[in-house]
Amino acid sequence: MSSLEMIEAAATRLKGHARRTPLLGSPFLDEIAGRRVLVKPECLQHTGSFKFRGAWSAISALDPETRRRGVIAFSSGNHAQGVAMAATGHGIASVIVMPSDAPQLKIDNTRALGAEVVLYDRATESREEIGEALASERGLTLIRPYDEPQVIAGQGTTGLEIAEQAAELGIHRADVLVCCGGGGLTSGIALALEGHAPGLRARPCEPEGFDDTKRSLISGRIERNPSISGNICDAILTPQPGEITFPILQRLCGPGLSVSEDEALHTMALAFLRLKIVLEPGGAVALASALFRQDEIAGDAVIVVASGGNVDPDLFASALKHLR
Amino acid sequence: MSSLEMIEAAATRLKGHARRTPLLGSPFLDEIAGRRVLVKPECLQHTGSFKFRGAWSAISALDPETRRRGVIAFSSGNHAQGVAMAATGHGIASVIVMPSDAPQLKIDNTRALGAEVVLYDRATESREEIGEALASERGLTLIRPYDEPQVIAGQGTTGLEIAEQAAELGIHRADVLVCCGGGGLTSGIALALEGHAPGLRARPCEPEGFDDTKRSLISGRIERNPSISGNICDAILTPQPGEITFPILQRLCGPGLSVSEDEALHTMALAFLRLKIVLEPGGAVALASALFRQDEIAGDAVIVVASGGNVDPDLFASALKHLR
Repeated sequence: MSSLEMIEAAATRLKGHARRTPLLGSPFLDEIAGRRVLVKPECLQHTGSFKFRGAWSAISALDPETRRRGVIAFSSGNHAQGVAMAATGHGIASVIVMPSDAPQLKIDNTRALGAEVVLYDRATESREEIGEALASERGLTLIRPYDEPQVIAGQGTTGLEIAEQAAELGIHRADVLVCCGGGGLTSGIALALEGHAPGLRARPCEPEGFDDTKRSLISGRIERNPSISGNICDAILTPQPGEITFPILQRLCGPGLSVSEDEALHTMALAFLRLKIVLEPGGAVALASALFRQDEIAGDAVIVVASGGNVDPDLFASALKHLR
Repeated sequence: MSSLEMIEAAATRLKGHARRTPLLGSPFLDEIAGRRVLVKPECLQHTGSFKFRGAWSAISALDPETRRRGVIAFSSGNHAQGVAMAATGHGIASVIVMPSDAPQLKIDNTRALGAEVVLYDRATESREEIGEALASERGLTLIRPYDEPQVIAGQGTTGLEIAEQAAELGIHRADVLVCCGGGGLTSGIALALEGHAPGLRARPCEPEGFDDTKRSLISGRIERNPSISGNICDAILTPQPGEITFPILQRLCGPGLSVSEDEALHTMALAFLRLKIVLEPGGAVALASALFRQDEIAGDAVIVVASGGNVDPDLFASALKHLR
C-alpha cells in the first residue's frame, strides 16, 4: 500500500534529481475561469512529464543488487521516457518494450535517453510474453506505470510541492484538478494533500468518452472504458482505474470532471499564449476543466496539474488555430 | 549608478511578486551544444518576459507620494506589459504610449493588465512630446526600459537567482549568455554575478546585423545599429547600448555573440521539443548562441537566459517546421 510516509521518503530520494516545478498563473486565465487559477507545469519536469518522478522513485527504492540487474517497462509514451532517463541516471540498463508501429520520434527519444528498445508486433505478439521472457532471462525488474506503490509515491511528491506552494500563497481550501489515466498521479497527490494540506482536494480530470475514473467514483466500483484509442489525449487513455489507485481515489477524491478534445486543444493554445508552456492534449485536460467547467468547481481558487508536454509539432500548430 | 546593493534591495522588494524561475535543461540540448546547457526561462515570468522584474523594481522604489500619481512608459512590447502589470499590482495608474499601428493583441493585452493606452501616429506625432505633456499634466513618472538604475537592479535579480542555482548544481565557472537589447538585463546580471558568482561571466547575445553591443564591446565605444527594424527578434532591437548600461557591460562582460534569424527560429522549435517552453525570437538568441556558436564558448557548462515568450502563434507555428 502507498502511504504519506512513502511519499515523503520518495521526496528525499528525488531531491536534486527531479525538478521542483513552479506554480504559474495569469490574470487572463483567472478571467476565463472566474477564479484564481494556479498551474503546476509538470511538462517542465525531466522528459516532459511527471512520469520521471515515479520512475525515479521506483528505481531508487530497489535494493542495490536487484537494481544493478536493470529494469523493464511496457510503454510507448511518457512512462517509457521517464523510466529510461531514471535508469540512466542510476547507471543501470533499461529495456522498453514498444509496439513496432510506435512513432519513430518516440523510439529515437527513448533510445537516446539510454534505453534498449525492443519492438513487438501488436498483431502477432504479446508484449507480456516478450517482457516476461526478457525479465526472467536477465533478472530485470518490471516498473509498472501506475499500479505500483513506489511509482504512486513518486508521483505524490507533486502533491507535497503543491501543499507547500499553496500555503505560501495563503491558499488553504481549493480543488486540485489532476489529469488522470490509471490514477497514479491523482492518487499520489491525494495522499500527499491528505497529510499536508487537508483543505485541498484532488479531483481526476479525463477526456469525454474515456471517463472511466469519473464513472467509477460515481458507481463505487471499477468501470472500464469502451476502448483505449480514438482520442487525442492518448497519454491518459487507460482501460480502467488501477487496483491499487482506485481505493485511494475513492477514499480521498472529489467528483471527476471531463472535457472534449476541442476544449483540450483550445486550452493548449491558451497555455501557449498566457503561460508560455507547451502542453500535450492529455496534459491539458485539468486546466481545460478549470477553464470550461467552472460551474462544477467551488471556491475562489483552483489548482491545476498540467501533467505533460510531449506533443507532435503539427498537432500543436493546429491547436494554435484556436487563437485566431 | 546601479550596484549590487541596489540589486539585493530590489530582490527584497520583488519577493512574493516576481516569480523565481527554475533552471531547465535537456540531455538532447547538451548533445547539440557539446556541453551542459542550463536555461533560465524568463518567458515563465509574469507577462511572459523578464521586464516585469525591472518594472516592479522601479515602481516599488518610488517614494509613495510620487508613486501615487502613476507612471508612464513608451513601449509596444514586453516593457509595456511589465509596467502595466507592476503598476496594477501597486494599485496605481499607468499610461502606455504606443504607436497606433501596434498589433491589436498587444494593445488589448496592455489594457487588460490595467494600463491606459495612448496611441500616437508615428508619421506625424512625437511620442516624447505626447509623453512629456501627459507626464507633466498628471505628475506621472517615466519608467525607462533599460537606462534606469532601478530597472537595471530589478533585471539583476535574475542574476542573483542564477548565482544561487548554479552553486546548487556545483557550477562555479561558466559563461552566462543573455539576450541583449539596450543592455538592462545583461548589465544587471553582470553586476549580480560579479558580487555573488565571480566565476560566472555574462555575455550579450544579439541578432546578426543588429549586434551594436558586440561591436561596441570590440571598439570600446557606443556603436549604433543601422536600423531598428527588419529582424524577427523585435523584442531586442534597440538603436545602441544604453549610456548607463554600456560602461557596466564594458567592465564586466565577455565578448558578444550573434545568431541568424533562422537559428533563432530553429532554437524556438528545439525549446518547444526539449524544454516545453515558448520562446519569442528575441528571447531565443542566447540559447541559439549556446547551440550554434559552441566554438566561441569555453567550459563544460553554459548558462542561458531565455528572456521572453511573447510570440505570435503563426510565427511560432512556422518555427516548428524546423522539426520536420
